[in-house]
Amino acid sequence: MRGAEPFLLNEHLSRMVRSAARMELALPPVEELVKLAAQACDGWDPAVEGALRLTCTRGPEATGEVTCYAILTAVGAASKAARARGLNVAGITLGFPAAIRTDAPWLLGGVKSLSYAVNMASQRWATANGLDDVLWLSADGFVLEAPTSTVVWRDGDALCTVPVSSTGILPGTTARHLLDNAGALGLTAEERMVTTASLTAASGVWLLSSVRGCAPIHTIDGVALAPSPDTVRIQTLLGFHAPE
Amino acid sequence: MRGAEPFLLNEHLSRMVRSAARMELALPPVEELVKLAAQACDGWDPAVEGALRLTCTRGPEATGEVTCYAILTAVGAASKAARARGLNVAGITLGFPAAIRTDAPWLLGGVKSLSYAVNMASQRWATANGLDDVLWLSADGFVLEAPTSTVVWRDGDALCTVPVSSTGILPGTTARHLLDNAGALGLTAEERMVTTASLTAASGVWLLSSVRGCAPIHTIDGVALAPSPDTVRIQTLLGFHAPE
Repeated sequence: MRGAEPFLLNEHLSRMVRSAARMELALPPVEELVKLAAQACDGWDPAVEGALRLTCTRGPEATGEVTCYAILTAVGAASKAARARGLNVAGITLGFPAAIRTDAPWLLGGVKSLSYAVNMASQRWATANGLDDVLWLSADGFVLEAPTSTVVWRDGDALCTVPVSSTGILPGTTARHLLDNAGALGLTAEERMVTTASLTAASGVWLLSSVRGCAPIHTIDGVALAPSPDTVRIQTLLGFHAPE
Repeated sequence: MRGAEPFLLNEHLSRMVRSAARMELALPPVEELVKLAAQACDGWDPAVEGALRLTCTRGPEATGEVTCYAILTAVGAASKAARARGLNVAGITLGFPAAIRTDAPWLLGGVKSLSYAVNMASQRWATANGLDDVLWLSADGFVLEAPTSTVVWRDGDALCTVPVSSTGILPGTTARHLLDNAGALGLTAEERMVTTASLTAASGVWLLSSVRGCAPIHTIDGVALAPSPDTVRIQTLLGFHAPE
């Protein structure tokens, strides 16, 4: 949310439409989803940073009927604090090679679904091990994404992220918006495969999502990263509230 | 269900308790789950084969509260028909090696959760390709399980299934019960790794689940398997209704 308005709503709806098609889930017309979102935002205090979640589900017992609803909540203090304090992460494997999902459509590469058990288990594993989050790695040693966010890093004058089409990672709406506007920071945008070793040598690594905003990673696998002056510039460009 | 009574209820509840613990989901006391199941079964016509589903969920928006409910429906005609007609399946990869989940607890090996998007996508892929179901394969070429059932096959005088602890497949309650009672069929029980090539040479391959019952596989990757006289013996031992 930006003030009382959804941010990048069309981009999020486009991803939802693509994901639903892959799961053969019959969405209502997009105009109805837009209306649901608007109803949820009605009367929201624009001084509070909101997180809008639009869900369409067959429910735990599939009956053929799809239910859609929108929930608007305030972004949590922990998410905002991480934007200043940064994140301590470790790489953990997803077990499969980076490219497998391009040839195996049943693995639902690129699809945002409600099947979040492994995502949440990965983040609980992080907490249990004294970490803030994890980076999911492929079996062949590449960084893919984080369980609920996209990895972005700076290399030279380029803002980089992991290619979506060759990996099956979730296309991050916030990261895409940042890279599309990299020019406003005097930077270019690139898609590349990367290892955790390369990330620790980058001049800035961030996890991006619409709720988390832009949180810098300060440690990967116990290796400290230098703070980047780009963090605040990116947060300002994206319009995320400064930590309180 | 057997008549108006849940079948192997304790075994299913034990698996639910283990799965919930892995997901840090706080279940109500087991006695309450038993009561929920009993309420759902109250008044059920014992002549109809029922499928009882007990669900405990934080809901799509985790609030900390866990909701539990039981739903009892009649086993569908398609499931019953497959017990006689058999299944045409193909092997499709899950992308990771068979043993990975034993070292990566965040991948939730052995856990039954509501994150079924890939399971359902795999079965939709089967339907779209003129198949009844799929066998999930590991990257190193072993048969793991099917999206909603356990693979059992006969080799000599042994009924075999895939080992749970070294693969992270779901421990199948119906398959476990069958193998524990293999002696009643004059057979022994074994856990082994297997390939699709070996399965096509087996003297009987079945998919087992509490709803599906015991459905013979008649074709794997286009290769026809000989019908097995054990199919009816197994169905009778397990108490599944004959196809109508």
